[in-house]
Amino acid sequence: MTDDRFARGKAIRDEAYGKEGLKSWDELHKICPTHADAIHEYCFGTIWDRPILDRKMRELITIAVGTALDIPHEVSQHTRGALNRGATRDEIIETILQCSPYVGFPRTNHALKAAQNIFDQWDAKQDEWKSL
Amino acid sequence: MTDDRFARGKAIRDEAYGKEGLKSWDELHKICPTHADAIHEYCFGTIWDRPILDRKMRELITIAVGTALDIPHEVSQHTRGALNRGATRDEIIETILQCSPYVGFPRTNHALKAAQNIFDQWDAKQDEWKSL
Amino acid sequence: MTDDRFARGKAIRDEAYGKEGLKSWDELHKICPTHADAIHEYCFGTIWDRPILDRKMRELITIAVGTALDIPHEVSQHTRGALNRGATRDEIIETILQCSPYVGFPRTNHALKAAQNIFDQWDAKQDEWKSL
Amino acid sequence: MTDDRFARGKAIRDEAYGKEGLKSWDELHKICPTHADAIHEYCFGTIWDRPILDRKMRELITIAVGTALDIPHEVSQHTRGALNRGATRDEIIETILQCSPYVGFPRTNHALKAAQNIFDQWDAKQDEWKSL
Amino acid sequence: MTDDRFARGKAIRDEAYGKEGLKSWDELHKICPTHADAIHEYCFGTIWDRPILDRKMRELITIAVGTALDIPHEVSQHTRGALNRGATRDEIIETILQCSPYVGFPRTNHALKAAQNIFDQWDAKQDEWKSL
Amino acid sequence: MTDDRFARGKAIRDEAYGKEGLKSWDELHKICPTHADAIHEYCFGTIWDRPILDRKMRELITIAVGTALDIPHEVSQHTRGALNRGATRDEIIETILQCSPYVGFPRTNHALKAAQNIFDQWDAKQDEWKSL
Repeated sequence: MTDDRFARGKAIRDEAYGKEGLKSWDELHKICPTHADAIHEYCFGTIWDRPILDRKMRELITIAVGTALDIPHEVSQHTRGALNRGATRDEIIETILQCSPYVGFPRTNHALKAAQNIFDQWDAKQDEWKSL
Repeated sequence: MTDDRFARGKAIRDEAYGKEGLKSWDELHKICPTHADAIHEYCFGTIWDRPILDRKMRELITIAVGTALDIPHEVSQHTRGALNRGATRDEIIETILQCSPYVGFPRTNHALKAAQNIFDQWDAKQDEWKSL
Repeated sequence: MTDDRFARGKAIRDEAYGKEGLKSWDELHKICPTHADAIHEYCFGTIWDRPILDRKMRELITIAVGTALDIPHEVSQHTRGALNRGATRDEIIETILQCSPYVGFPRTNHALKAAQNIFDQWDAKQDEWKSL
Repeated sequence: MTDDRFARGKAIRDEAYGKEGLKSWDELHKICPTHADAIHEYCFGTIWDRPILDRKMRELITIAVGTALDIPHEVSQHTRGALNRGATRDEIIETILQCSPYVGFPRTNHALKAAQNIFDQWDAKQDEWKSL
Repeated sequence: MTDDRFARGKAIRDEAYGKEGLKSWDELHKICPTHADAIHEYCFGTIWDRPILDRKMRELITIAVGTALDIPHEVSQHTRGALNRGATRDEIIETILQCSPYVGFPRTNHALKAAQNIFDQWDAKQDEWKSL
Repeated sequence: MTDDRFARGKAIRDEAYGKEGLKSWDELHKICPTHADAIHEYCFGTIWDRPILDRKMRELITIAVGTALDIPHEVSQHTRGALNRGATRDEIIETILQCSPYVGFPRTNHALKAAQNIFDQWDAKQDEWKSL
């Protein structure tokens, strides 16, 4: 049932992206509720909630996608999610490095800096970033 | 040493992509030896040969990158590599599905069909695709 | 309810893309049922089923997106959908032309040829393309 | 005649993007007059000045293109143009939402925020943004 | 005057892409005369006809752009143009290779094969490809 | 030998991008030494160090790639490199303008502004940007 997926999606997001994730979602929900609801119901509640690959693996895959699409903000968000799900910094850096022969060096540079920026702030920003 | 990386890179490629990978490489080598050598030395011999993430994981990440970049040929190649490294078909399909909210449905469709096309031919093409 | 959106999404797709659309969907459903179901439930059943912009307008917007993403197959599919929803050939060509200063000439060329290819086959392929 | 298209193109731009549009154009004209002139003559004076699709429709199509290309600045500019040509905020948000299954959620997020940013400043910035 | 640019643009295209270029242009002109005319007037008659960089250089730059955009057809077309303007095969291959750290290996592979494909057919296709 | 390429790559980078280039490289080296070393060894020490096209030409090609990929930061960096290698401002602007029919106007605008921004600061920033 859709309500069930919506709730599970919200829980997955809270778990991965903490208070800041909730804040971002609220901002999008004010602009376009349909889209914000699809983020919970389809993106997190349908795709992220699936078996076979665990959630840490899914965060690493999504970091790779953010690198390929040249969207550092997604790399940042999923770096936070990966750390919350037990990934090491090495695993995150290696994931981005694995992309480099395929996406080229500029996109790799952008992603590495985005990830490092999260690492640098990780302890200071725990209140906003830790799992809810 | 560069010769050592070159040789290890070639071995990694043979292991993942079999005879067909060698054939592709030879074709590129005729066109541009510098580029073909960088594929062995930098791509496979420097990046793929690293620790922290195992080679099956690296194939799945590269499938995600091929999906994001909308290059079905890379999805095909790394589907073959993932299967040779023990990934299940489910793991490959889930990797592509994980990309879908981020890359959109058309690119996801392209990647799913590319992977399925490899699955359909997997047994018949073992001679060309199995690990060398 | 999700079942209701799924059914409405399927109906919208049948209406726009006819037998060939159903055939494509079946092919994707065999590869990845979750993804095929999301096409009906999220893509068509949530987004396409919305008010404010009518479905002909939505087809024209999606043609523009296919042009910008350089995915001629999407331009083809939505050209068929636009024609089924009463768009004229001029409206479709103008939509693609409107993209040209923004996406560059090669992508515009690809989209124009994809649309024209549908126009050329439109009468002969009515059985496969007309609204179901 | 080219002079006539140049003048009509300039008028279309003034109508849509007001003083800020003129300021942007002047900045580009200082850097590269040929390119700035092509913006008036080719982009606005040849493409935008065409029949079949009205200018509000053209602004909505161009918002979709800006969303697909992940260029929020274009989404902002054409949100201003669409509002100046009588589009409602709902029509603009729906146009971006229509792109979402095709371009993925990150690009949709970027575009929604860019459009909302214009809405939030619309009244305060009337002097710079209203039709000239 | 626009007629003058249109004529010079057509001449530049004929010079670079021969009979096959004319054939492609005719095909686009049937689909959308405005766009085909802009190819002559704006693309070739305004941009290509400029000083500072000679036409061989411009072909090499456009090969780089085709490589970056992952459009092998543009790489093919401008490989033919570059050869007609006296570029060597080495200059063309080096141009593509120069892109490789920036665009990644898959796009580089696509471009190298597209260029080589033209080289392989160059003598046999002289009637269709030589300067008009 | 790889050490030799690494040293030549570092020298090429110092020559082109001065102190600021070294600073950027150091930042990346702290985040991911493997990637920073590949920048010296593969990107600059293997690709940039090749014959056939001189280094000024290579900077202009890379400006075109940065324009096509919509990465203004690369346009900025290679504008500095091109100026250090004797390119004129006209040659740089013409290179970007040559891309415009192929990449569309938004990407061209971004690149023109990035280049102009470097021109405007060129004299003031000589200490950070001149060849080392």
